[in-house]
Amino acid sequence: MANIAVLGAGSWGSALSIVLSDNNHQVRLWGRDKKQIQEINEKHTNEKYLPGITLPKNVIGFTNLQESLAEVETILLVVPTKAMREVLNDIGRHLKKEVTFVHASKGIEPDSLKRISEMIEEEIPESLRKSVVVLSGPSHAEEVSLRQPTTVTSSSLQIEAAEYVQDLFMNMHFRVYTNPDLIGVELGGALKNIIALGAGLTNGLGFGDNAKAALMTRGLAEIARLGIKLGANPLTFAGLSGLGDLIVTCTSVHSRNWRAGNLLGQGKSLEEVLTSMGMAVEGVRTTKAAYQLASREGVEMPITTVLYDVLFNNKQPQVALDELMGRVKTHEVENLSL
Amino acid sequence: MANIAVLGAGSWGSALSIVLSDNNHQVRLWGRDKKQIQEINEKHTNEKYLPGITLPKNVIGFTNLQESLAEVETILLVVPTKAMREVLNDIGRHLKKEVTFVHASKGIEPDSLKRISEMIEEEIPESLRKSVVVLSGPSHAEEVSLRQPTTVTSSSLQIEAAEYVQDLFMNMHFRVYTNPDLIGVELGGALKNIIALGAGLTNGLGFGDNAKAALMTRGLAEIARLGIKLGANPLTFAGLSGLGDLIVTCTSVHSRNWRAGNLLGQGKSLEEVLTSMGMAVEGVRTTKAAYQLASREGVEMPITTVLYDVLFNNKQPQVALDELMGRVKTHEVENLSL
Repeated sequence: MANIAVLGAGSWGSALSIVLSDNNHQVRLWGRDKKQIQEINEKHTNEKYLPGITLPKNVIGFTNLQESLAEVETILLVVPTKAMREVLNDIGRHLKKEVTFVHASKGIEPDSLKRISEMIEEEIPESLRKSVVVLSGPSHAEEVSLRQPTTVTSSSLQIEAAEYVQDLFMNMHFRVYTNPDLIGVELGGALKNIIALGAGLTNGLGFGDNAKAALMTRGLAEIARLGIKLGANPLTFAGLSGLGDLIVTCTSVHSRNWRAGNLLGQGKSLEEVLTSMGMAVEGVRTTKAAYQLASREGVEMPITTVLYDVLFNNKQPQVALDELMGRVKTHEVENLSL
Repeated sequence: MANIAVLGAGSWGSALSIVLSDNNHQVRLWGRDKKQIQEINEKHTNEKYLPGITLPKNVIGFTNLQESLAEVETILLVVPTKAMREVLNDIGRHLKKEVTFVHASKGIEPDSLKRISEMIEEEIPESLRKSVVVLSGPSHAEEVSLRQPTTVTSSSLQIEAAEYVQDLFMNMHFRVYTNPDLIGVELGGALKNIIALGAGLTNGLGFGDNAKAALMTRGLAEIARLGIKLGANPLTFAGLSGLGDLIVTCTSVHSRNWRAGNLLGQGKSLEEVLTSMGMAVEGVRTTKAAYQLASREGVEMPITTVLYDVLFNNKQPQVALDELMGRVKTHEVENLSL
């Protein structure tokens, strides 16, 4: 039995708390919203984020970060990328001994173009970091909380740390694979949201399954191309945190990124789309970050580039698609250039 | 302008005839059904296979194979795997000069375990074969006939032959990539039907997107593992003829293989499923062939193995899934073993 702080009481943090609790670990779930944490502790529900689900009794809610960290050997970060540095700063001030940092958030920080593990390394002193692990894969939180079959990847530069996290989470419903390619796992999870935007866009334009499959396949190829340039293993992008997550995100109409792309394809402006969604669409920020990364690294990313132009330069979606289809003839595998 | 015989007047043969005709080639479309060919020549429709679509006037139908081959420099084979050897034999008897053979069929011959290009090489004398090319990728025929955006791969051991076929087919709606990995392209197209069966099975069992994404991702990994052992390039499986085709087949409820798996997951027997479908389900034969190939090559294919047991040894689908989820802990990328 381990003592684990789960920071972030949204749907994903709550679902992962259930997995840990099912494996007999003690879970300390932290969130800012007092009413929500009270609900978790008194009714053992989190209706706003996991409607209809009962949380196990050994998931204890906290609104005080310092209290949630008492005696834990592992911290699982499930906060939005935007809030990450602030939370890390607070953790650093309260932590007394070194712990394992696991994160299950997806994104690249704008401007700095840093991955989340890099943010953890920048904000948490080395003496307090036992290791940094990312948990990522195709996983709707609702299905995980219903104990439906789910598979994810645990990745760290230190393979023992990845295996430690594998042991924490693995059970008959939740299967964990390890992968030493931290860069690839983090990039795949973040960049796949760009492709989900694009897949929604083709749907909004009225196109079908052929176009969606093309967008997803060639999109994954260009994500892999950027990843390889940044040091990732190309095979990681064909794995759970790349392809697997891409499939879940692009083929579910519940995906925010897909829905945003669909509205753009129907002719809505980015401002209209964001207003009508009423919440952040991670893929929009990530498209900008990937566009900047591709420019910095000199990597060709035709799909990301036209999506960037649709989002930020008022390019018409149909024109963007025509440009993709009208590119010069090319080879398939050389283009992915191992 | 080229003169091309398209052998097989089903939905895919007819759709590819439209692409060739749009590119100003002369198309000689052969089929056995006299009424159907008459309809194609008189009404320029093929209602049974492409309802609502008008075929261009330079698509000419033939029921006589010898006549359809007159003066052609290229033969496009779009007949079912089952009928392939017989048709090849007939071609061999009628052909006067060497031609380029292109095929767009998907399957592995049971017992012989041969790919279609190998069957072409066995049945057609070398003096009559200029080259052998496969055209494969994510492509519902209906969408292609509506000129919706579609991407495919043209593959041959001779790259000039693959590029020749790329030139024949490529236009603003139909984008063709070349790939020298003939083995990988043929195997991906055939083996993906196994995974579609499995994806349908998880749905029939009542599971969701996480399970489907896991099945597809790990399924593609084991297909790649077999392919690598047989000489394929692993990256091909991440391309249009692998991943791309897998996406189209697994995420469309129109896929026969997905539907068959779904019925199996709901508890129907294989016999009941095949009877209720009323037509061949290619993935069933392919599962047997892949199981035999994996045994012969000593390649671990856990998903194919449990599906084989569900299809042919009365294993309960839920038991099969539990076995997959309960396997020993493993690494993700090493498992794919480049």
